Amino acid sequence: MDALPPRLLTGYREFMQGRYASESNRYRTLAKDGQTPETMVIACCDSRAAPETIFDCGPGELFVVRNVANLVPPYEPDGKHHSTSAALEFAVQSLKVKHIVVLGHGRCGGIKTALDPASAPLSPGDFIGKWMGLVAPAAEAVATNTMMTVTERQTALERISIRYSIANLRSFPCVSILEGKGRLTLHGAWFDISTGELWAMNPATGDFERPEFD
Amino acid sequence: MDALPPRLLTGYREFMQGRYASESNRYRTLAKDGQTPETMVIACCDSRAAPETIFDCGPGELFVVRNVANLVPPYEPDGKHHSTSAALEFAVQSLKVKHIVVLGHGRCGGIKTALDPASAPLSPGDFIGKWMGLVAPAAEAVATNTMMTVTERQTALERISIRYSIANLRSFPCVSILEGKGRLTLHGAWFDISTGELWAMNPATGDFERPEFD
Amino acid sequence: MDALPPRLLTGYREFMQGRYASESNRYRTLAKDGQTPETMVIACCDSRAAPETIFDCGPGELFVVRNVANLVPPYEPDGKHHSTSAALEFAVQSLKVKHIVVLGHGRCGGIKTALDPASAPLSPGDFIGKWMGLVAPAAEAVATNTMMTVTERQTALERISIRYSIANLRSFPCVSILEGKGRLTLHGAWFDISTGELWAMNPATGDFERPEFD
Amino acid sequence: MDALPPRLLTGYREFMQGRYASESNRYRTLAKDGQTPETMVIACCDSRAAPETIFDCGPGELFVVRNVANLVPPYEPDGKHHSTSAALEFAVQSLKVKHIVVLGHGRCGGIKTALDPASAPLSPGDFIGKWMGLVAPAAEAVATNTMMTVTERQTALERISIRYSIANLRSFPCVSILEGKGRLTLHGAWFDISTGELWAMNPATGDFERPEFD
Repeated sequence: MDALPPRLLTGYREFMQGRYASESNRYRTLAKDGQTPETMVIACCDSRAAPETIFDCGPGELFVVRNVANLVPPYEPDGKHHSTSAALEFAVQSLKVKHIVVLGHGRCGGIKTALDPASAPLSPGDFIGKWMGLVAPAAEAVATNTMMTVTERQTALERISIRYSIANLRSFPCVSILEGKGRLTLHGAWFDISTGELWAMNPATGDFERPEFD
Repeated sequence: MDALPPRLLTGYREFMQGRYASESNRYRTLAKDGQTPETMVIACCDSRAAPETIFDCGPGELFVVRNVANLVPPYEPDGKHHSTSAALEFAVQSLKVKHIVVLGHGRCGGIKTALDPASAPLSPGDFIGKWMGLVAPAAEAVATNTMMTVTERQTALERISIRYSIANLRSFPCVSILEGKGRLTLHGAWFDISTGELWAMNPATGDFERPEFD
Repeated sequence: MDALPPRLLTGYREFMQGRYASESNRYRTLAKDGQTPETMVIACCDSRAAPETIFDCGPGELFVVRNVANLVPPYEPDGKHHSTSAALEFAVQSLKVKHIVVLGHGRCGGIKTALDPASAPLSPGDFIGKWMGLVAPAAEAVATNTMMTVTERQTALERISIRYSIANLRSFPCVSILEGKGRLTLHGAWFDISTGELWAMNPATGDFERPEFD
Repeated sequence: MDALPPRLLTGYREFMQGRYASESNRYRTLAKDGQTPETMVIACCDSRAAPETIFDCGPGELFVVRNVANLVPPYEPDGKHHSTSAALEFAVQSLKVKHIVVLGHGRCGGIKTALDPASAPLSPGDFIGKWMGLVAPAAEAVATNTMMTVTERQTALERISIRYSIANLRSFPCVSILEGKGRLTLHGAWFDISTGELWAMNPATGDFERPEFD
């Protein structure tokens, strides 16, 4: 048995001969001096929506949490272990990032499950069901609106969820305090896998709009 | 205020003119047919250790969870929301990945916090402390061996943590059953940010070794 | 009975027709003028880790002590005979070497014995047990950390032992005085028998790192 | 400051491009399967008399102790640490070598010190004096024989010391028992640095003679 999947070994060789070979000084400096990313991205696990790819970012630029459907749970200081909250705390308190971007995307499997629980894989733990339960009220409201098409309902919940996560970010004292002082900015974005279009959330209205790039 | 950090807008433009322009068909197909990644990677949030970069992978190839210190908690079907467990369930049950890779790396800030809790940022929730508490027993055993250097202790715990996460993966029935049937393989890897070296876990011994690439 | 093992006679013939034939002037000069090596190496007896081989050095270059696990005992002016201390004194006081290198290596049998005394050959004198007792406290601390693999524990103690020997070198007044005057430099190195990799000790941190050769 | 003396780094590079490159399989096998040398050599630290060089031996062939003047102390099971005795025990009990060769050489600095203690470097510990004290009675007898030239006295004591070390080898029960069973053979040899000549000890008479090679 190979120690690693063959595709990953091939890819790693490409990395060493490509990016690492041309950026070894950058890697060495990042190792010696530590990371100082300005931006945290909360993204989905989806294989089609890697933030480093979409934002063409190199080593040291993005501190990235990825979970199913890029959700931020509400602030729950209950003494349990919370993956996303721990990462948030690390990014804000320790790395002092200036930006947090919640990056959603179209055709999200987690959002689909929230809208159609019967489509979820069944397991004794039902971890997906519990996890997507974070957006259950919104999912229920959207799912019952059968005048929207399936795709419209999916996109609607994807964007509602981004706003929900941004609201939850603000439930963390460290986030709301720094945002109030103008030292931290929260952003939402939604990526269309098919067309490659990126839609940015208007912070005033919550609407998703095409940014002007040119 | 910009809707997105300027660096991300610049990077997105590069993406559209570069990778998306040359791979738009791939993106359209991935959107239409859905993702079918063969590999799930559990990686760290660290900005210097993005799996897509290290493995030079494109859209559709890697289903990626990223949390602080690339930890997998043990199987806890307690009805709470568990970010990493939900992603694991989705990858294994729904996407039916063939490989799961736990990818650690050197100079991990989460591991450093576990070894030296006093270095952690303080917050009322202490989410990092709770999260890294998952490896507290190992951290204590390593931290007290002061004949090892700070860096050696750090590397030791980084690798112990990868083995711990792999053991926890096997505590999920869906993982252990599929692994027993030979349909799912678990891997460990450790990336050296400075040298770019990738060390793969020997599945028989748990040792991290340099794979032979040439 | 042959006066010498046949393999050694064959090898000696190769030496005379090879290196000696091409370097006879060097040998004659070294005999006439005496040796003036700049470097003392304290290495292990292991048949796979000869310093002349690893450093591709010829006659006159390395003054070499070899004992089990390349240990330097602490300074003990007790009137007893001390093999390694005598060699150290000769190299520093008489030959005035500029460098002392403690050269350890992977898979060291002496270190293995220190970690697992039960694996040692039993004899009335128990000389190996007594000798490796020099690093007993470190061995115990490492051996009890069972979350590290057997190989990781072995490598850890191999490197701790090199640092221990370097610390003991400094307990000799002749070493510490000359080092203080900048006329003697102490080095640590660790050789990986399998890959051939050489790791050099960072004198500031004690960490073992791959030197940059290219 | 360089981590290693520059000459050693240069030599290591030669090793990797030369011997290691052409014998990497041998090194990997020796790492995986462990060492099984048939011969232990007890040699001097002298930079001009490395046994691997004189016997043109590669990795895995010779288990080598090197101390000043290639001495074997008598069997002293006193609970102290004894470098040479530990190596002997390891070679005989654990590695089960078939041959032990005591390799002396001309112009030995340790022997010179034994004959002329005033030439020794003085230090509070006087480790060389104590170490060479092992052959003090022989040294005194030779030194007072002023009808032999200085060089003759030197050569005489070099050869007496080899026979003395071989006698001491036999004071170790593990050696004498295995020698009695025919499973271990003891040899003496003396190397002339200037001419490259190797003289082998006749086991019956103790004389040093030129072996017939051709």
